[in-house]
Amino acid sequence: MSKQLCLGGFMRPVCLHTAWWRHPSAPANANFHWPTIKSLAQKLENACFDAIFTADHLALMPMPPAALRRSATVTSYDPLVMLSAIAACTEHIGLIATGSTSYEDPYLLARRFASLDHLSNGRAGWNIVTTVNPEAARNFGLENALRHSDRYARAEEFFDVVTGLWDGWSDKALTMDKESGIFSDLEKIRPLNHKGEFFSVQGPLNIARPVQGWPVIALAGASEGARDLAARSADLVFGNARSLETAQQFYRDVKARARALGRNPDEIKILPACQVYVGATREEALAKKRYMDDLVHIESNIPNLSIRLGVDCSGFDPDQPLPELPVTEQGQGNQREWVALARREKLTVRELAKRAAESGTGELVGTAKEIADQMETWLMNEGCDGYIIVFHTVPDGYDDFITMVVPELQRRGLMRTQYEGNTLRENIGLPRPISPLDK
Amino acid sequence: MSKQLCLGGFMRPVCLHTAWWRHPSAPANANFHWPTIKSLAQKLENACFDAIFTADHLALMPMPPAALRRSATVTSYDPLVMLSAIAACTEHIGLIATGSTSYEDPYLLARRFASLDHLSNGRAGWNIVTTVNPEAARNFGLENALRHSDRYARAEEFFDVVTGLWDGWSDKALTMDKESGIFSDLEKIRPLNHKGEFFSVQGPLNIARPVQGWPVIALAGASEGARDLAARSADLVFGNARSLETAQQFYRDVKARARALGRNPDEIKILPACQVYVGATREEALAKKRYMDDLVHIESNIPNLSIRLGVDCSGFDPDQPLPELPVTEQGQGNQREWVALARREKLTVRELAKRAAESGTGELVGTAKEIADQMETWLMNEGCDGYIIVFHTVPDGYDDFITMVVPELQRRGLMRTQYEGNTLRENIGLPRPISPLDK
Repeated sequence: MSKQLCLGGFMRPVCLHTAWWRHPSAPANANFHWPTIKSLAQKLENACFDAIFTADHLALMPMPPAALRRSATVTSYDPLVMLSAIAACTEHIGLIATGSTSYEDPYLLARRFASLDHLSNGRAGWNIVTTVNPEAARNFGLENALRHSDRYARAEEFFDVVTGLWDGWSDKALTMDKESGIFSDLEKIRPLNHKGEFFSVQGPLNIARPVQGWPVIALAGASEGARDLAARSADLVFGNARSLETAQQFYRDVKARARALGRNPDEIKILPACQVYVGATREEALAKKRYMDDLVHIESNIPNLSIRLGVDCSGFDPDQPLPELPVTEQGQGNQREWVALARREKLTVRELAKRAAESGTGELVGTAKEIADQMETWLMNEGCDGYIIVFHTVPDGYDDFITMVVPELQRRGLMRTQYEGNTLRENIGLPRPISPLDK
Repeated sequence: MSKQLCLGGFMRPVCLHTAWWRHPSAPANANFHWPTIKSLAQKLENACFDAIFTADHLALMPMPPAALRRSATVTSYDPLVMLSAIAACTEHIGLIATGSTSYEDPYLLARRFASLDHLSNGRAGWNIVTTVNPEAARNFGLENALRHSDRYARAEEFFDVVTGLWDGWSDKALTMDKESGIFSDLEKIRPLNHKGEFFSVQGPLNIARPVQGWPVIALAGASEGARDLAARSADLVFGNARSLETAQQFYRDVKARARALGRNPDEIKILPACQVYVGATREEALAKKRYMDDLVHIESNIPNLSIRLGVDCSGFDPDQPLPELPVTEQGQGNQREWVALARREKLTVRELAKRAAESGTGELVGTAKEIADQMETWLMNEGCDGYIIVFHTVPDGYDDFITMVVPELQRRGLMRTQYEGNTLRENIGLPRPISPLDK
């Protein structure tokens, strides 16, 4: 079989574009309206996506009120509740939920993902995050997030506890013999007896080994800590590259780290997130992007500019040039770059703020052919193993990609036309972990 | 409208009878086989049950290995994952999940139940438990469960945090005005800023106020602490009465406590759990019960006898009379009673163990008419407001009740023939809590 893209659809929130909900066709309540969510999930499955991806934030987003009140992110489903419901009305697509190693509990998390994996017949995935938002910390009894190194030390131990609990069940633990009345072989269900720096967990779980052995493990983040944890633990690594060159650097670095740990680098898939605007012509695609970006109110863009410049820009006149800035401790390097851009292109504050706010993910804008060309180039040249597709609005962004880009990718053999395997691991081409009890 | 029974169906585990899975018609894997769970849930909805109830244990059950290996409880879904999936393939039935105040986190729990409530369009319920099993404690970093008073103090604070988070959103918080681009009115989304003995939670939640205001609150337990918490907090109270007289004592006590706190006693519903065996004749029903009880191996019954007698009975010859017992510190009163029973009726150890193991819930055995008679008597005489029905096997226990008892109850006007309301609160006849922000 020729090389194929691994494709995830970013579904929580339903879109990342700040103004997605203002689009005339968009149901503004899509993030917590079940019929909409169900219909989007089924669209992605009909298009043969590998998985649905759901991000998470354990607090309101840390934005000033003027921006926050314009954000549809204030209300969304818990990812596992949402994916459990989606599991019941899909058959093939993978279901990847974000779960925080700083604020969730490992016994409960291991059991919930095992439950989702059984319920979906082997389609669950866990996206490990360490949660840096300080607002989240304050919802869990802390004043601030753990330091970076502590977060990753905790994440590593959390991962070991969760996978250790899954491994505490042999595949052959359940005999369910009606004649003798013996339901399980307790020799094949072992306690974990973990005592570590952060957790003390006896086990075993009270649910059988997941269908996939372990649900698929995903991880994002570009820091050293994140790359090391990904190389050791992840099946899928989410990236955020904006050029083939930076994508290749990330791709080769993560694969090299995995190889150095004795892993097969083909069994760790690199998937940058990418927001897509597609049109019948390049002009049409660009017009869609412009239309969406113009829907963003400057109050939503100003916080991004404040971050880039290291000063509060909320008092600036949006239709004047950038004023002279006070010198601050923070963000000097970035400030110089953004001030230079404003002067060079003679941008108003409004225009500069719009540039600063451009999607945090990579972007692809063009015809289906142009988009498929770039995807193919990246896939064939160590830029990526696939993408997490970010849609610009609901349902148009989903429909555009599915009706225009997917057929082009399928025509080139870069995407399946029907699911080959039964589980997410089988569809992505990942091995099934074996419990030590079965070795 | 005449007085009607409030009926819940006990679905996690699918049955409480130790031998349910050995019945010839039973799929032994029912507790973690999604097509079976889905079909049982839809049966209960078609029969117009008010709600599905799911219990939980955060560890393997504390039994000796000889009994544990015979128990189907070793593997079950997480209740919230299971009910989220059921929400997606039902439309009317309530969805009550057990959630522990000792080991869950209040921010995450509040968000998950709010998510289930939105996703199901107002059908979620939370059964508050404090989790006494010491095996569970050891899965969460503790050596033993908290003391009774601490468990209830924590439960009370946990409840206040969770409901406070739900109340932090006004019903009018979301404007979603595409024209102005304002999504929410932040004046109507307030932080909780809770700082208590057990929890420190800033809030607000990042999900809108639940459809029901608060999901329905349920609580079980006969202790003083449980009754007080129930009278203060619960909409549904699960009991476990074996005679009308003890049922009335419990019913009147809980309603009096609620009234003393200024609550309307009609808005707190008392639902004893009850295992049902129904047949075309009384003899047929009794034969079903005997058949099930005979399927229980003595190794499953011995632990119950050991508890009653306060000594380890696993070495006793099952087919001999009860030997002379050593005097122990523990359980003296109970021991005398059980020894007297054994001597009086000349029971073997096997026979005595079977008596000791009889279902922990109440039982109803008889024809549909006999069962409906008793239910009607209890309902009309302050014995209960309804029942949590426990089925003896899968699917026969479900089918028996639905095809024989439900029509008889409907004929008498004691049960609905179609759902009247949209939400669980509406169907049970409970008011919708108003947020302080909307008063």
